[in-house]
Amino acid sequence: MMTKSDVTAMIRAKKRESGITWAAIAEATGLGEVFVTSACLGMNSLSPEPAGKLVDFLGLPAEAAIVLAEYPTKTFAQTVPTDPCIYRWYEITGVFGEAFKELVQEKFGDGIMSAIDFDMEINRITHEKGDRVEVVMSGKFLPYKSW
Amino acid sequence: MMTKSDVTAMIRAKKRESGITWAAIAEATGLGEVFVTSACLGMNSLSPEPAGKLVDFLGLPAEAAIVLAEYPTKTFAQTVPTDPCIYRWYEITGVFGEAFKELVQEKFGDGIMSAIDFDMEINRITHEKGDRVEVVMSGKFLPYKSW
Amino acid sequence: MMTKSDVTAMIRAKKRESGITWAAIAEATGLGEVFVTSACLGMNSLSPEPAGKLVDFLGLPAEAAIVLAEYPTKTFAQTVPTDPCIYRWYEITGVFGEAFKELVQEKFGDGIMSAIDFDMEINRITHEKGDRVEVVMSGKFLPYKSW
Amino acid sequence: MMTKSDVTAMIRAKKRESGITWAAIAEATGLGEVFVTSACLGMNSLSPEPAGKLVDFLGLPAEAAIVLAEYPTKTFAQTVPTDPCIYRWYEITGVFGEAFKELVQEKFGDGIMSAIDFDMEINRITHEKGDRVEVVMSGKFLPYKSW
Amino acid sequence: MMTKSDVTAMIRAKKRESGITWAAIAEATGLGEVFVTSACLGMNSLSPEPAGKLVDFLGLPAEAAIVLAEYPTKTFAQTVPTDPCIYRWYEITGVFGEAFKELVQEKFGDGIMSAIDFDMEINRITHEKGDRVEVVMSGKFLPYKSW
Amino acid sequence: MMTKSDVTAMIRAKKRESGITWAAIAEATGLGEVFVTSACLGMNSLSPEPAGKLVDFLGLPAEAAIVLAEYPTKTFAQTVPTDPCIYRWYEITGVFGEAFKELVQEKFGDGIMSAIDFDMEINRITHEKGDRVEVVMSGKFLPYKSW
Amino acid sequence: MMTKSDVTAMIRAKKRESGITWAAIAEATGLGEVFVTSACLGMNSLSPEPAGKLVDFLGLPAEAAIVLAEYPTKTFAQTVPTDPCIYRWYEITGVFGEAFKELVQEKFGDGIMSAIDFDMEINRITHEKGDRVEVVMSGKFLPYKSW
Amino acid sequence: MMTKSDVTAMIRAKKRESGITWAAIAEATGLGEVFVTSACLGMNSLSPEPAGKLVDFLGLPAEAAIVLAEYPTKTFAQTVPTDPCIYRWYEITGVFGEAFKELVQEKFGDGIMSAIDFDMEINRITHEKGDRVEVVMSGKFLPYKSW
Amino acid sequence: MMTKSDVTAMIRAKKRESGITWAAIAEATGLGEVFVTSACLGMNSLSPEPAGKLVDFLGLPAEAAIVLAEYPTKTFAQTVPTDPCIYRWYEITGVFGEAFKELVQEKFGDGIMSAIDFDMEINRITHEKGDRVEVVMSGKFLPYKSW
Amino acid sequence: MMTKSDVTAMIRAKKRESGITWAAIAEATGLGEVFVTSACLGMNSLSPEPAGKLVDFLGLPAEAAIVLAEYPTKTFAQTVPTDPCIYRWYEITGVFGEAFKELVQEKFGDGIMSAIDFDMEINRITHEKGDRVEVVMSGKFLPYKSW
Repeated sequence: MMTKSDVTAMIRAKKRESGITWAAIAEATGLGEVFVTSACLGMNSLSPEPAGKLVDFLGLPAEAAIVLAEYPTKTFAQTVPTDPCIYRWYEITGVFGEAFKELVQEKFGDGIMSAIDFDMEINRITHEKGDRVEVVMSGKFLPYKSW
Repeated sequence: MMTKSDVTAMIRAKKRESGITWAAIAEATGLGEVFVTSACLGMNSLSPEPAGKLVDFLGLPAEAAIVLAEYPTKTFAQTVPTDPCIYRWYEITGVFGEAFKELVQEKFGDGIMSAIDFDMEINRITHEKGDRVEVVMSGKFLPYKSW
Repeated sequence: MMTKSDVTAMIRAKKRESGITWAAIAEATGLGEVFVTSACLGMNSLSPEPAGKLVDFLGLPAEAAIVLAEYPTKTFAQTVPTDPCIYRWYEITGVFGEAFKELVQEKFGDGIMSAIDFDMEINRITHEKGDRVEVVMSGKFLPYKSW
Repeated sequence: MMTKSDVTAMIRAKKRESGITWAAIAEATGLGEVFVTSACLGMNSLSPEPAGKLVDFLGLPAEAAIVLAEYPTKTFAQTVPTDPCIYRWYEITGVFGEAFKELVQEKFGDGIMSAIDFDMEINRITHEKGDRVEVVMSGKFLPYKSW
Repeated sequence: MMTKSDVTAMIRAKKRESGITWAAIAEATGLGEVFVTSACLGMNSLSPEPAGKLVDFLGLPAEAAIVLAEYPTKTFAQTVPTDPCIYRWYEITGVFGEAFKELVQEKFGDGIMSAIDFDMEINRITHEKGDRVEVVMSGKFLPYKSW
Repeated sequence: MMTKSDVTAMIRAKKRESGITWAAIAEATGLGEVFVTSACLGMNSLSPEPAGKLVDFLGLPAEAAIVLAEYPTKTFAQTVPTDPCIYRWYEITGVFGEAFKELVQEKFGDGIMSAIDFDMEINRITHEKGDRVEVVMSGKFLPYKSW
Repeated sequence: MMTKSDVTAMIRAKKRESGITWAAIAEATGLGEVFVTSACLGMNSLSPEPAGKLVDFLGLPAEAAIVLAEYPTKTFAQTVPTDPCIYRWYEITGVFGEAFKELVQEKFGDGIMSAIDFDMEINRITHEKGDRVEVVMSGKFLPYKSW
Repeated sequence: MMTKSDVTAMIRAKKRESGITWAAIAEATGLGEVFVTSACLGMNSLSPEPAGKLVDFLGLPAEAAIVLAEYPTKTFAQTVPTDPCIYRWYEITGVFGEAFKELVQEKFGDGIMSAIDFDMEINRITHEKGDRVEVVMSGKFLPYKSW
Repeated sequence: MMTKSDVTAMIRAKKRESGITWAAIAEATGLGEVFVTSACLGMNSLSPEPAGKLVDFLGLPAEAAIVLAEYPTKTFAQTVPTDPCIYRWYEITGVFGEAFKELVQEKFGDGIMSAIDFDMEINRITHEKGDRVEVVMSGKFLPYKSW
Repeated sequence: MMTKSDVTAMIRAKKRESGITWAAIAEATGLGEVFVTSACLGMNSLSPEPAGKLVDFLGLPAEAAIVLAEYPTKTFAQTVPTDPCIYRWYEITGVFGEAFKELVQEKFGDGIMSAIDFDMEINRITHEKGDRVEVVMSGKFLPYKSW
């Protein structure tokens, strides 16, 4: 039975041999880059239509579209990530997490930023002293309710 | 010897009794909200000038300005944060961390987004289906160099 | 500065000497038993009105109402709870967690049950072979969205 | 030797190709949805009769019924689950676990809710502001005894 | 507010100065040695009557009886115990745990030995090659039920 | 090279197809049930004679007797076991471990119960309110010696 | 109530001010250096007679002798020790532990070296290329028994 | 590519079929038992000459001598070993580690016993109350130097 | 799809059969020894030109050059390394890490030494009392900035 | 009894009020900056002479010199350090640790770089694109010996 990690491996192999970028995959499917990349890595599900477009675009077998549309079980490194690129984000959570909580609570009241009703964009910003990575995240505020 | 956590406790006590917000503290010191909040929580150091303004604004003892200007040792929960507001961000790192790495590498080459030459803003975006938390982060891209 | 755990200790001491039950506290504040108990244990915030009622009902100092209304940082045992009463629930998460996920996805699509827009009730059900604990939880379904 | 995870994989493959739901499997076997799903995922054993019905209904090999009837060793993520749908339940255990213990003890005395003499139901409740997941759990109260 | 660990310390101090044994405490309260010792160490609650007898027997303050009757939160070393006397029992769980499970299942069907409806006795057995520790445990069998 | 886990798998397969019980295996080898089961699961070594009897009784290849007689490296779950049947015993260690230590020391002096010079029996005790699992363990007392 | 760590602190203070060595303490009590040092650090109990001698020799209060004679709960760093002097021994366990097991089994059969019926000596061996630490340990062999 | 664990498996298979002991292997190679056993288990490297003798003595393929001479990466259980024979040694590190450090420092000054410039011997000592395992370790003392 | 660890295995096999050193590989590619070794072990990416030279020099398949040029995900032992050669460096981080931080801050202000804009050299220094390993690391200083 | 952490706190307080640098302390004691800083932080011992000079230079009580000369127990964060300045070094160990081992072995044979017979220097190197931190470490090579 074809699994999500089989499909991820197929996509990586296609990318290596063809040079197709994540940006091109995003455009071909009509979705955002972060979302479609995370779905290709097995961390989100695609609706049948963009799943079909992706499979057509990359020339994958039809079953891959079914697999991409299945709901994933999200499994990730449970403690401290080691890759420096991902670790830096973990460090930001540690260093600024409590400041983030203070400010969300000051601006909205007691509650959280949803990680489900959520989107994210990653941009390259040119800068004279060295280009910068810009990340824009937006999540619905969910207030704690009493009952 | 007065410590950073002593100063954090003084600031929290002043905020409770006076109702002063983090936004007002940011304005009084001329710094961004996220940065000044993280410094008040002991995770960053203030330069002497904004440290002095903060101490004047809140009516803290003069030694507090020296402590706020000292370089902190950043200590945070080493594994999985439990507070739901902070956990959601940790979850985002887990779910989208590899997609983030793929896209940074596609847009910039092999390297990382700095967590040191870095800034962040948190905004409330009004939205008809419920307001949203917007987070904008910007960090310098640091390429791996060979030698 | 009075903390949430100071207030929890005051409430426990009052309960020990007076025999007042959580049910009575819930009635006096007009809130559900689970919610008000969790707030008294420092895991949720009360709105100012029920916080005031609680403080009056138990004869606590006025500052306690301010503390009960502050937004908590939720900190709990990060791994496996040891008290058998709480462990059994952790075990249920382990044994039935994946079945829960399968059924939520079958009934609703890809998404989660919110733990924020959420309520819970605990009832004693009499039963001839030994009474039973009934727990009823209700949380808003949050669908994963693509973007 | 066919294992429980072999049988789980067969059931998932049948469901993918036929579109049969867990609800239909529950009906075909005369068991509750949560229980039969957990048994199909290898976390509980079926009695021989419903095991036979399940195997007939899905067209699995006869040995699968023997495997489904064997007593499982329940192995699950020992610390913090990462899938957001399961994590939220873990979070509920952390946030409300002590309140649950307080109320069980107030209503019943010192003891626990059994996770063995136990059942659970998951329902979709329509709601104008967004449908809700309802979970109803019932477990026998087991008092601590002295001796 | 007097806590269970305060009472444990009082009992240990009384034992040190008077030489009273756990066996004598068990006899004075009419309870088993293992149970009464575990209650004195804060891991179980006594009913008011034996709590009163214990307090009288050892000459403790009256509030100690109330504390001994309160329901404990059982907290213990979450991983590997280090004291050799306790470690050996942990090692037995590791070495013989699966054999225990096999035999319970063979003799009773799928289910567990309750750790709540449970008692234990510890005896000294004289033996020519060196005396032996005998432990006799008895717990109700709880079958898994389907529903 | 045939390993202990190969032999365990062979024994489990034979038991599934033939319905032979652990009790029958114990009788055929002239050993106790707990011991022979633990040896079949790879946690103890059999002497050549009972190893030969076991292999004849179950019709296993001759090399299996050599493997059963080899001295095992005992490897087990290093932290908290998840299967509820084994977990309950771990919980007993946590809840009663210190009481066990107190009573062993009171009855014998400073020292431990050996987990090597050790035996265990598991019995089904019929009881009107539900049958009980009885466990009887006996281990040599080893005193700490000074030198 | 005076504790073992109170007594350890008293002994360390006496050693600092008087310059008395562990060797002198061993001689004054008639015990081995390793054993008496470990007892002074709270990891073993002394019999009343050497406990009295030690207290007289160092001029400690009489209660200290009672405390030194009490049976300790041995608590130590549960994972990897950090002090380089102790870590090297942990490393030896990792690097040579399996070789030790192979050789004990070859020379004695299946079983272990007791850590209870055990003694140890530490000597300085002069050597032209730099003096060496010699450690001699001796523990009773305990064979696994079948039953 | 043949690995160190391939060679370990070959050696174990030869030992099983031929009954050759570690003592005989040590004699054939002219090395100590502990060292040669640890090298055969992949934890040390042999010089080409004894590696060749070992391969000849056991009749292994010539490439095995090259592999035995390669420098190993020493990987071992990072936390608490579970096999009782190895665990007892870990326990000795916990119980006597600080006493060892005290005595090394008293006899030598600040520094450590090397685990690299190190040797060890394991002997069987006959004893009327049961034979004993004797371990003799010798490591160069390395003083901390200031600079 | 050929992976980085496939390529590492090819390089190790070539080195074993040909005796080519890391120094020779560094010379052939025109890169530093530490960098090229880390890239061969899968921890850094090579630019296409030196990747091609390396593949030619060692006679590897052309696809290996593509793989060597891909950006790695850096995964390493998340806790305490066990190999003594690597552990000693970890120990240096523990023992001197805070001193390093103090001195970097004293010489540069609040900030860090980059591990990305970074290089390292390892040299053998002959010394009459035994040769020494010299490690020279150089990393760009990154100041914390306020915003 | 004055402890090493008491002395560290005294030194930090003196530095805060007087502005004395680590460089000045190193000069006053005639020792290297890294070594004397690590000793002031409690991770190394000073010989009596430099300990006396340090106490004179900073005007500390005489007992502080005795404490600085005592041999420390080195305790550090056992897993992943969180402060970014120290974490980067830990990351270097993870990313380059195996390359370091390969090169040490290629240049010296099987063995390690000592962390005891060891010294380290930290320098500021001016650089047009931003100054760099230079770290030079030197440790004696210790070969594994066979025996």
